Amino acid sequence: MTSLTRRNLLAGSAAGAAALAASPALAAAPIAGKQAPSIYRYKIGSYELTALYDGTWFRKIDDKFVKNASGAEVDKALADAFLTPGIVPTSFTALLVNTGSKLILIDAGTAGQLGPTTGMMTGALAAAGVEPKAIDTILISHFHPDHINGIKDKDGNKVFPNAEIQVPAPEWAYWMNDATMSAAPEGARPQFLNVRRIFRDIAGETKRFESGKEVAPGITSVAAYGHTPGHTAFAIASGNQSMMVLGDVTNHPWLFARHPQWQGVFDTDGAMAAETRKRMLDRVAADKMLVQGYHFPFPASGYIAKTASGYEVAPVMWQPM
Amino acid sequence: MTSLTRRNLLAGSAAGAAALAASPALAAAPIAGKQAPSIYRYKIGSYELTALYDGTWFRKIDDKFVKNASGAEVDKALADAFLTPGIVPTSFTALLVNTGSKLILIDAGTAGQLGPTTGMMTGALAAAGVEPKAIDTILISHFHPDHINGIKDKDGNKVFPNAEIQVPAPEWAYWMNDATMSAAPEGARPQFLNVRRIFRDIAGETKRFESGKEVAPGITSVAAYGHTPGHTAFAIASGNQSMMVLGDVTNHPWLFARHPQWQGVFDTDGAMAAETRKRMLDRVAADKMLVQGYHFPFPASGYIAKTASGYEVAPVMWQPM
Repeated sequence: MTSLTRRNLLAGSAAGAAALAASPALAAAPIAGKQAPSIYRYKIGSYELTALYDGTWFRKIDDKFVKNASGAEVDKALADAFLTPGIVPTSFTALLVNTGSKLILIDAGTAGQLGPTTGMMTGALAAAGVEPKAIDTILISHFHPDHINGIKDKDGNKVFPNAEIQVPAPEWAYWMNDATMSAAPEGARPQFLNVRRIFRDIAGETKRFESGKEVAPGITSVAAYGHTPGHTAFAIASGNQSMMVLGDVTNHPWLFARHPQWQGVFDTDGAMAAETRKRMLDRVAADKMLVQGYHFPFPASGYIAKTASGYEVAPVMWQPM
Repeated sequence: MTSLTRRNLLAGSAAGAAALAASPALAAAPIAGKQAPSIYRYKIGSYELTALYDGTWFRKIDDKFVKNASGAEVDKALADAFLTPGIVPTSFTALLVNTGSKLILIDAGTAGQLGPTTGMMTGALAAAGVEPKAIDTILISHFHPDHINGIKDKDGNKVFPNAEIQVPAPEWAYWMNDATMSAAPEGARPQFLNVRRIFRDIAGETKRFESGKEVAPGITSVAAYGHTPGHTAFAIASGNQSMMVLGDVTNHPWLFARHPQWQGVFDTDGAMAAETRKRMLDRVAADKMLVQGYHFPFPASGYIAKTASGYEVAPVMWQPM
């Protein structure tokens, strides 16, 4: 309490009164009360990439969250990662690629439609000095709400009015098929309806791509099916550098990279998702390739190390450009 | 190249000409070219903490960097962390504590005096909405340049004009003692001179504290000697939450937490530093206590897990407040 003593002493003296009048230092400092807009820039060749944090969904889980692991096993994995059992903090980080001539956004965030702790991407973009209307292209990895909701606000207006939207063709074929929707379990129905909410009136202008194609300069679509039928990763190459944007190849890495065989309730085909996960993570681990994961802790990029039982994410070290 | 095609198509049509005139979307996007101001906020009880990133020194090392490990062993540890052998990316993150009535800065950054990739704290503070003159108190962990240089700019002006500066008494006694300076190895002399540059003309107003004291409301000094003779950690407590600000108990954690017995060239007493490191990391690991480390990768906070051979840092998950 020494400083309070000093403050009291100052306040009781002529010097203290002058200091009080002259300086804001002795006024109570306001509490900001909210997280700062969160962006992180790095380079791949001549491309400038910006990770844009959209927020975190504190997902309450039950013992069915992982189909092939018990609730106790999942809770132990959370505790091992210094997280609270029963809650998976699922963060969302979109990636902006500036090629020098084009601004390409990979996945669209939530536009705040997944609760009060989401929707921070608007502020992040502003902090990056980028107006939504400046985005040229949006590449979508798959059609889950946390990846596509950012295309439109809750009133149905386009958030990025000038962007061409490109989506995986097999993803479109699955989710937009009415027969598939009818045959899907009741619990999946809201996702089908949400896909229609986003895409129905922009179907004509939404471009569908196959895997293995250059969908934007230096960006290639990579089939990573299983999590959803058309789930797609993106390889980015510029100069002699490259990286892999993993999308949802693994959800929270401290669960699903450490336990790659786990099948989350969110996987359309859990066995295929686990197989894809192992194949993709083996590849980027062998190549020591920089990766980005939509649900990795911000800034959501790092390297994958293979361990005896799974994979570990080494987060990228925050640094100047 | 589909979008280029689209662009060409648009440009060749009336609609395209209108779009070109109305929207900046088709202009080349400027490359920002530098990292964004980097801050991260979190709470301990009613206190609001802000991590302030000051930059990274890409320290070139030789095979004497660790006294009791070979250059090859250090390079392997760097490679295991996906870092470049021969270079230790040493980042600097100061911590601002807002108690609601006081603004307390723990360590002062570099004020840009450790090369062009340092000095980002000025922008970080501005992004946090805090003017340097609003800082009430600066707590210093020890007298190495990267912790005290931020007290003054290169012209000798105070960076935080209204802050009371508090320093560890044994640190002052060691570095300000002329006989100690004379007896020190020639290589250490610049550090002694730098301490004098910073403190000589503010000696009268610089407060010296012992360990185990409440140096600011809710903040207690904790002896962590070895790295330097008076090196001090700080325990922060508010409400029912607490954390430990480790200072330089470990330098880069991917080297010195994973290899806690390693003695860096920067330690005044390497054996004592290693002993202190193990004692402190054992304590925070057992308590599952949130820690901050000045040289941890930004946002420089996380948890310590004990492993078979050392300690692992689990970085805090970036989240809303």
